[in-house]
Amino acid sequence: MPVILGLPKGSLQEATFNMMKKAGFNVQVGSRSYVPTVDDPELSCRLIRAQEISRYVESGVLDAGITGYDWIYENNSDVVEVTELIYAKQGMRPVRWVLAVPEGSPFKTVQDLAGKRIATEAVGLTKRYLARHNVTAEVEFSWGATEVKAPELVDAIVELTETGSSLRANKLRVIDVVLESTTRLIANRKVWQDPVKRAKIEQLSLLLGGALAAESRVLLKMNVPDGSLAAVAASLPSLHAPTVNALKDSGWHAIESVVDERVVRDILPKLRQAGAQGIIEMPLNKIIF
Amino acid sequence: MPVILGLPKGSLQEATFNMMKKAGFNVQVGSRSYVPTVDDPELSCRLIRAQEISRYVESGVLDAGITGYDWIYENNSDVVEVTELIYAKQGMRPVRWVLAVPEGSPFKTVQDLAGKRIATEAVGLTKRYLARHNVTAEVEFSWGATEVKAPELVDAIVELTETGSSLRANKLRVIDVVLESTTRLIANRKVWQDPVKRAKIEQLSLLLGGALAAESRVLLKMNVPDGSLAAVAASLPSLHAPTVNALKDSGWHAIESVVDERVVRDILPKLRQAGAQGIIEMPLNKIIF
Amino acid sequence: MPVILGLPKGSLQEATFNMMKKAGFNVQVGSRSYVPTVDDPELSCRLIRAQEISRYVESGVLDAGITGYDWIYENNSDVVEVTELIYAKQGMRPVRWVLAVPEGSPFKTVQDLAGKRIATEAVGLTKRYLARHNVTAEVEFSWGATEVKAPELVDAIVELTETGSSLRANKLRVIDVVLESTTRLIANRKVWQDPVKRAKIEQLSLLLGGALAAESRVLLKMNVPDGSLAAVAASLPSLHAPTVNALKDSGWHAIESVVDERVVRDILPKLRQAGAQGIIEMPLNKIIF
Amino acid sequence: MPVILGLPKGSLQEATFNMMKKAGFNVQVGSRSYVPTVDDPELSCRLIRAQEISRYVESGVLDAGITGYDWIYENNSDVVEVTELIYAKQGMRPVRWVLAVPEGSPFKTVQDLAGKRIATEAVGLTKRYLARHNVTAEVEFSWGATEVKAPELVDAIVELTETGSSLRANKLRVIDVVLESTTRLIANRKVWQDPVKRAKIEQLSLLLGGALAAESRVLLKMNVPDGSLAAVAASLPSLHAPTVNALKDSGWHAIESVVDERVVRDILPKLRQAGAQGIIEMPLNKIIF
Amino acid sequence: MPVILGLPKGSLQEATFNMMKKAGFNVQVGSRSYVPTVDDPELSCRLIRAQEISRYVESGVLDAGITGYDWIYENNSDVVEVTELIYAKQGMRPVRWVLAVPEGSPFKTVQDLAGKRIATEAVGLTKRYLARHNVTAEVEFSWGATEVKAPELVDAIVELTETGSSLRANKLRVIDVVLESTTRLIANRKVWQDPVKRAKIEQLSLLLGGALAAESRVLLKMNVPDGSLAAVAASLPSLHAPTVNALKDSGWHAIESVVDERVVRDILPKLRQAGAQGIIEMPLNKIIF
Amino acid sequence: MPVILGLPKGSLQEATFNMMKKAGFNVQVGSRSYVPTVDDPELSCRLIRAQEISRYVESGVLDAGITGYDWIYENNSDVVEVTELIYAKQGMRPVRWVLAVPEGSPFKTVQDLAGKRIATEAVGLTKRYLARHNVTAEVEFSWGATEVKAPELVDAIVELTETGSSLRANKLRVIDVVLESTTRLIANRKVWQDPVKRAKIEQLSLLLGGALAAESRVLLKMNVPDGSLAAVAASLPSLHAPTVNALKDSGWHAIESVVDERVVRDILPKLRQAGAQGIIEMPLNKIIF
Repeated sequence: MPVILGLPKGSLQEATFNMMKKAGFNVQVGSRSYVPTVDDPELSCRLIRAQEISRYVESGVLDAGITGYDWIYENNSDVVEVTELIYAKQGMRPVRWVLAVPEGSPFKTVQDLAGKRIATEAVGLTKRYLARHNVTAEVEFSWGATEVKAPELVDAIVELTETGSSLRANKLRVIDVVLESTTRLIANRKVWQDPVKRAKIEQLSLLLGGALAAESRVLLKMNVPDGSLAAVAASLPSLHAPTVNALKDSGWHAIESVVDERVVRDILPKLRQAGAQGIIEMPLNKIIF
Repeated sequence: MPVILGLPKGSLQEATFNMMKKAGFNVQVGSRSYVPTVDDPELSCRLIRAQEISRYVESGVLDAGITGYDWIYENNSDVVEVTELIYAKQGMRPVRWVLAVPEGSPFKTVQDLAGKRIATEAVGLTKRYLARHNVTAEVEFSWGATEVKAPELVDAIVELTETGSSLRANKLRVIDVVLESTTRLIANRKVWQDPVKRAKIEQLSLLLGGALAAESRVLLKMNVPDGSLAAVAASLPSLHAPTVNALKDSGWHAIESVVDERVVRDILPKLRQAGAQGIIEMPLNKIIF
Repeated sequence: MPVILGLPKGSLQEATFNMMKKAGFNVQVGSRSYVPTVDDPELSCRLIRAQEISRYVESGVLDAGITGYDWIYENNSDVVEVTELIYAKQGMRPVRWVLAVPEGSPFKTVQDLAGKRIATEAVGLTKRYLARHNVTAEVEFSWGATEVKAPELVDAIVELTETGSSLRANKLRVIDVVLESTTRLIANRKVWQDPVKRAKIEQLSLLLGGALAAESRVLLKMNVPDGSLAAVAASLPSLHAPTVNALKDSGWHAIESVVDERVVRDILPKLRQAGAQGIIEMPLNKIIF
Repeated sequence: MPVILGLPKGSLQEATFNMMKKAGFNVQVGSRSYVPTVDDPELSCRLIRAQEISRYVESGVLDAGITGYDWIYENNSDVVEVTELIYAKQGMRPVRWVLAVPEGSPFKTVQDLAGKRIATEAVGLTKRYLARHNVTAEVEFSWGATEVKAPELVDAIVELTETGSSLRANKLRVIDVVLESTTRLIANRKVWQDPVKRAKIEQLSLLLGGALAAESRVLLKMNVPDGSLAAVAASLPSLHAPTVNALKDSGWHAIESVVDERVVRDILPKLRQAGAQGIIEMPLNKIIF
Repeated sequence: MPVILGLPKGSLQEATFNMMKKAGFNVQVGSRSYVPTVDDPELSCRLIRAQEISRYVESGVLDAGITGYDWIYENNSDVVEVTELIYAKQGMRPVRWVLAVPEGSPFKTVQDLAGKRIATEAVGLTKRYLARHNVTAEVEFSWGATEVKAPELVDAIVELTETGSSLRANKLRVIDVVLESTTRLIANRKVWQDPVKRAKIEQLSLLLGGALAAESRVLLKMNVPDGSLAAVAASLPSLHAPTVNALKDSGWHAIESVVDERVVRDILPKLRQAGAQGIIEMPLNKIIF
Repeated sequence: MPVILGLPKGSLQEATFNMMKKAGFNVQVGSRSYVPTVDDPELSCRLIRAQEISRYVESGVLDAGITGYDWIYENNSDVVEVTELIYAKQGMRPVRWVLAVPEGSPFKTVQDLAGKRIATEAVGLTKRYLARHNVTAEVEFSWGATEVKAPELVDAIVELTETGSSLRANKLRVIDVVLESTTRLIANRKVWQDPVKRAKIEQLSLLLGGALAAESRVLLKMNVPDGSLAAVAASLPSLHAPTVNALKDSGWHAIESVVDERVVRDILPKLRQAGAQGIIEMPLNKIIF
């Protein structure tokens, strides 16, 4: 019996398929888009809206799924959160649901919205947020294009935002962050007790994590004369010890270190100054620390 | 005060904008897609999901709107239906909501679905349909891709269909038509009592109707000798009398008639046989009978 | 029983569908491309390679078809040629099959190719051409890209050409025209004896001809004072007499004439000089003389 | 000897080719884009930047050309302006060269720019404008993207604007209009004395004017009972008298009138109220008044 | 004298060019598509239909070629098969020619087709297949779109299939596999005796093989403490011994091993459990074992 | 204070952005294209025409810039040339400005153009070239499409060429090379004295150079038995010494060497013959020698 895995159809789909591919699983949408093929007999994928995945994982139709924390919370789903899939580059960034009002409106805090009307695609999330703040307001389900509705149709909106550009374009002002959300690998509670299926889901978690970690890192290799070893080591980030290999009878060492891609531009000049030679930077597919 | 007119965002949008253009109103989506520009100061447009337009026309936020009958019914909205915008060509065709089940399932009628689970984007419409048939079933809101859900996730679906091809591709069998729907121009009940706004909405209705009528009609012109007049007249559809003009001292008449484009292929051979000569067919922009 | 009509799949397909649409028949490729839909219950279309249509019309699987004369000839098909569909604009132009040799080769006439090797997609056509010239040569079937084969793979080719640009690009020299070909409407011999089916095919022929004739013509309308009638008439092409209508008690006549679009630019200045006023040019859909 | 006609390469190219096609001349860019083909042996086209056309018409390398008034003025070219090609729709609208400064800058008039630096693609035009206002400033040639240069690189710009949206997007404020410009058909002074070439250029002028006039007009046709003639006539714009044709022994008249497309939506309701019936609106290709 | 190498035009073209590029040869289609350029003076490429390549390699017009086994067999060509280019990923997969009949037809085995009509693009292959089964049937050459022909035009088809989706879409049932085929590098028998040309073809074979092998493999690197060496080694596939490097005076070893990409997802968890740390996976361009 | 860096807008833009990304700087064009964003607070980018960058670096509005040597020379700008960015692959190749005349013209040398007319986008460069050769000719500024102007509009042109194909297509013959140009990183003379800004510009220079060097190189790794070390070393290019690592107590060495990608296909067969085993080729991101 394969693990039935829900993948998010729509805006997260391409990023998820790429991430699965980097993890080692080739998922492809064929003639039946609901059941994309995957090259692993122990997995069987389903392509479903991100909004619905946690619901079906909870009910057991799906064994596991990849979806946003926001929709797990919206659905109030009782599932196991296996891992958080944080990714610094485009596609898997944290997103925020915000409470926004028209730039020119008098509303300053959530309390000011008592008795007002709020449109959102996430009604449950919004109602629980209001309840936490003891605010009573009318929450209206929106079919989309929520950010154009205020002020004419509603007084405020609760809407997803990545960069804030759509809010600015619609002249909206954020007055509170309702929820921050990242992508998660989740599992059904019962399935998590099944050792075979759990091992499969944990393998998925390990490989997805390894692929995401590699996205923002590179391997640096260099040759260093004996006298420069200390200075070079000091220039490398201290997180993980570099692999140092003495080249026999040569007075040189070969050094390798995995570093964050973003620091490369700062440490390359220092490494050269410290005496490293023949420095090369190479791409990585996966890292398991 | 211009008339605030709701236009449907999404799948009906392009067809609606084209129809407005043929009617003489140039609507364009600019930087603010919610408020497209229109070259008439007596109109102010709003681009909103078809699902929501009737709701806002009823509440008076919009004075008038163009939307489908299905969503008026789903929302149970109390509005004035000014005119039905039927259009034989692509984009404004009648659509049908159908109850469909997997090809291999045992369900034959709506009664067989008692106690089962049905997914749909139109929950209200589905529940009222079930109530009319005294059937109790679980109706579940679907976020989309409804046609892939049966049989694994639900037992049946209620879904919009134009040609049936998506249903066939997903191996679904239609067991009943829940609702037939066409596009409508609707108005708020109060606004309809305001003579200035009503005149504007009626002008819109006249011009939209004139443009739609012209889409499927053409002008036929021909020359006919005196002796053939009766035979030619008999070959022309009797709906509207042709314009007959005696050409002075020539023994000929020039005849013009607006006819349905679909009958042209049948009457052209008859007109020629009846004695008409120099028959030409010309395109039309608008017709006001 | 509808008339089964073969339409050419591939390069001629779009032009044929456009021509059918102008004739009044809306053909559309749906999920089953072999049986495109058509909005006339008396017709049933099949989308088949142009190369094969005449074969199936001859055998009676198809009642009629639209295809090139070249493939009728290649297949040596015994069919009724109902009409030639000549069209001056892009898509339905006459094409030529030519015998071509490398620019630098010594071959000057077909006789020089005795004993040589010729590649072509139209083996039958080529062999009959050689036989007519009493030349014996090896004719080899080509799967395509024929124009790149000479001189390395073969000595000469027989290939279709519209503008000659592909031949020039491959440095080939035409030494003879093997066949000129235009598009034809053809019918099965037996079907042609069936009065109902024959009437349908003749209707198709009339409407296709009317649509093609309208492509290159326009309607000119103008007002002419009594004294200028003769001069204006002299400026109009004499092919079809204009419709002249005396406007009662006004000293003016309204004149209409269908003219070739290509002559408009030359006669407009003359008409104005001859005294015509308010000259307008209008587009046409069909003309039946 | 054909007339050598310069056509503008670049942003005006597509609009110019369309206008030529509507006028009856099919211009196509083939393998040599400098000499596009045209289906008239009395014309020979050259595709050249709009900036340079008037220069080569003046020197006699070109006999005539289509270009903007702005570049005729920039080049100070001594040529015959045959006609102004005004077109209400997209592509041939009047454009304006404006003097613009950053929104937050203190400059209010051209006098405030004395001693400052101005970037522009039209150095001559800008210098003559400054001289007219007795202002001395540094004018710097800009290779493009001029509107991003102020305030960092220069103090002000002189730039072409159609709708002003690019200026607003770059937060620039217009302080003066330097030049308004429309498209022109121009001719070389000597060539204009040659009766054969002049006749050809005048034919071009007549047909281009006829095609442009037709773009924004339509033909209205209707039937009017005797008693309503006066009321209907009063509802029609008075610019051009309608063609009125009494239908013999019927008590009805057939009326035709060319009207501006923009007024149709307003006069259709009035015409119907005045008693007109069977009103149809038809498209036009050309109008020669 | 360069080696003349035939490359397959059409559906295999892009995959072949990519494979050549990975092998180190940059092939590009320029103005003459029959002779694509290649950045190696010892090679000269020809772009020819896959169907024809083996024919021309046998005759010696080409020295070598890349094509499918199916067309070598169809053509019954006597050539040297230098290597099989198997590639697990898209583009170079094994394909199958199958005998297929309409889903609803009574045919169950090839014997049921005795006396029937079969359409195929591979007539020779089909006839030899039938002969092997002692079945006499009519085999008809098909110009394409073969899968739509049954049952109306023929009783069965023999057609190429990769995934079977086109067969299913046309409601066809496979009743036998006629031939399985992969891509091959082939050489002319005489050329293979020429040591210079043979060395070049063997270099091509080595590099193509190296590039294909690298497509599905990666390099794993990791650090392993002395005590875990045996366990880690046991977790690595045994095909090729890993490179083990003792890091001086540290109690650690650096281990590198090339592994199949498909097993990575299974061995990574095991390696970590066995004690490996800092495991990284890196991409490869080529592998020569 | 960040370093203000000018990047070339237009044809060099994409190549420059890619090169910056490989160097470790993510530049993106957002809503204000003049100021693209960059993920480094010590840099602030400006997007300006390549023609103008050196002008603004000289005046100090920009601190540094990437542009072609041709425009530095055309503008006669006094700036520091920090490094030459040579790149063997597409996008950063050396380009040439050539003096070209029509194929059939009598002009053989620059001296033959005395008194003639020359069109060019680089007037200064052309005038200085003519002065060096003591030739007096009329140099005319061309707004583009210069290569179509000879012989009709001018006698010769000075134009940029990469491959010569545009010149050949326009039947032009090169009679002299006026200037060879490559891409340069330049800095303002005063800014170069500021140690903080200079360090930043040198970091940019180091990283851009490292990324460009890696584009055409790969890492080769292999295992070599003791007895084959000399032979293998002899097969490797001698530019940079390989890293040789004795694998303890095994009789083998692990060898790594960075080599030019173009020589790989030639040395791989030799390395294998010399005794190397398990040879792998890997991609590189950056190389700092």
